[in-house]
Amino acid sequence: MGETFADRLIAAIDAKGTPVCVGIDPNVSLFPEELAPDPADAADPEASLDAIFEFTTKVLQIVAPLVPCVKFQSAYFEKFHAEGIGAYFDLIQEAVDLGLVVIGDVKRGDIGPSATAYAAGHLASCPSVDELEGITTPDATTINPMLGLDTIQPFLDVAKACDKGVFVLVRTSNPGSAQLQDVKLADGRTWSEMLADSLAPLADKLLGQSGFSSVGAVVGATQPHTMTSLRKRLPKSIFLLPGYGTQGATADMTQSAFVDGHHGALVSASRSILYAHREARYTNEFGPDWQKCVERAVLDMKAELSKVLGK
Amino acid sequence: MGETFADRLIAAIDAKGTPVCVGIDPNVSLFPEELAPDPADAADPEASLDAIFEFTTKVLQIVAPLVPCVKFQSAYFEKFHAEGIGAYFDLIQEAVDLGLVVIGDVKRGDIGPSATAYAAGHLASCPSVDELEGITTPDATTINPMLGLDTIQPFLDVAKACDKGVFVLVRTSNPGSAQLQDVKLADGRTWSEMLADSLAPLADKLLGQSGFSSVGAVVGATQPHTMTSLRKRLPKSIFLLPGYGTQGATADMTQSAFVDGHHGALVSASRSILYAHREARYTNEFGPDWQKCVERAVLDMKAELSKVLGK
Repeated sequence: MGETFADRLIAAIDAKGTPVCVGIDPNVSLFPEELAPDPADAADPEASLDAIFEFTTKVLQIVAPLVPCVKFQSAYFEKFHAEGIGAYFDLIQEAVDLGLVVIGDVKRGDIGPSATAYAAGHLASCPSVDELEGITTPDATTINPMLGLDTIQPFLDVAKACDKGVFVLVRTSNPGSAQLQDVKLADGRTWSEMLADSLAPLADKLLGQSGFSSVGAVVGATQPHTMTSLRKRLPKSIFLLPGYGTQGATADMTQSAFVDGHHGALVSASRSILYAHREARYTNEFGPDWQKCVERAVLDMKAELSKVLGK
Repeated sequence: MGETFADRLIAAIDAKGTPVCVGIDPNVSLFPEELAPDPADAADPEASLDAIFEFTTKVLQIVAPLVPCVKFQSAYFEKFHAEGIGAYFDLIQEAVDLGLVVIGDVKRGDIGPSATAYAAGHLASCPSVDELEGITTPDATTINPMLGLDTIQPFLDVAKACDKGVFVLVRTSNPGSAQLQDVKLADGRTWSEMLADSLAPLADKLLGQSGFSSVGAVVGATQPHTMTSLRKRLPKSIFLLPGYGTQGATADMTQSAFVDGHHGALVSASRSILYAHREARYTNEFGPDWQKCVERAVLDMKAELSKVLGK
């Protein structure tokens, strides 16, 4: 057994001095002009994939010295079918080669044998459980628990065998999430609180030296009203907090996700970093240099979080 | 606008005289001996994919004259990364060419822009919304609504624009599903009942000539205790009922999913059909002829359902 996923992630956060995770959501319609596919090629998936490759490679090179972790949003790759999946795994390999911890944001969830197949394809890569060769899978994936906690077990088995991790969706960042996740149960808890309570014993089974579990939780940074309650129910889980920036969450709103005020959480931002070249506050300073915009957006986010985390 | 998905599916069910949907869950470790990859090639994904291709092609040819619909379980293809996804779409094309209605069992769900990308990759294929060429996507996909009903809208938009359909997970077939889906809310409904109530107005917006909506619901055939309640809350949705056979559901257990006792539902079975060559009752009759076992298992399932549906 090597170091656990949680321990590698905590060490990477400490080494970079920030809990920022950059979300890789490559949407060609938002790309800088110099990288956008020629409008004449708009119907050509190869042109879009070439642009995605070039853009993402540059973003990874910019952010690798600055942050511990990146999160790849699978949807933008699946849009391009087999070729898109090829790009997804090739770019994950690039991120790993740059020393980044990599999360695959795939939100998979299915019943037993299908969940086993998903875990094999998306998370396994140690020889003991992986019959495939030559593919580097992410260090962790997001998983959707709606089908039941029995359905996440195959992912936990792979995580344990391969020193990988999972982030289970507990309370998501989108506006419509309240209806299904904040709904009150007969026993007074919300649905997400009940889910968190059920997840805690599973998290306890995958603890590392750091005291944190490789079973993390996704909790939208946009949900401060329930953050303290979920943190109390899942004290050992690393929280992955999407929703920073474009979705409206601020550094203050993330604070109660951190244990002892400054560790055990990752704050993820995608559009506000990748597409910083679309914001006047950056283009006023850097003009058409979109790479400088990305770098500054990361540095700004790090600074904002440092203020709140007291580091 | 062409015929809606619901109308095409209802017509196919009528034409074949059965609501059987065959689930394509190609797990090489359960394949007939003559098709299983050589043990020496166990670590070679190409050998597994070749076997999956040959097995699935034969299954599609056997079932196409007998049933209206097949459902591809994406997990077994994603296990093989880009090459697996290539096989998934190639085999969907084969199924469409054989005249089958095809469901992609992908259970995707994500927030707005990511859901839009998923809908583009997995469901879009009409020129108006699809910038890709040359890929045939399924007639419908399964989707996971846990993130909120706002997150299913991008799928509904594509379904409407392209005459496609969706099946929203409402109550799944696995043993652990009760904890999260049958849990009682403060207002007395279960979580799944609340979800069904919220989904009904969306289903009403995609009605076809048949009176059924292209917004269907996945309800495990293993859940008869809640079937009547969910059917009442979603009167216009076609129910996709997994769990028949290996998971334990019988024809009787599906009855209350049908409107007026005999239409508006699809009953899906995977392992009990694909791997019928592993059951003594079939091998006693057909010996090593696994294709005859598959055919007979389909005919038996059709006969069992016909008894219950009074046709």
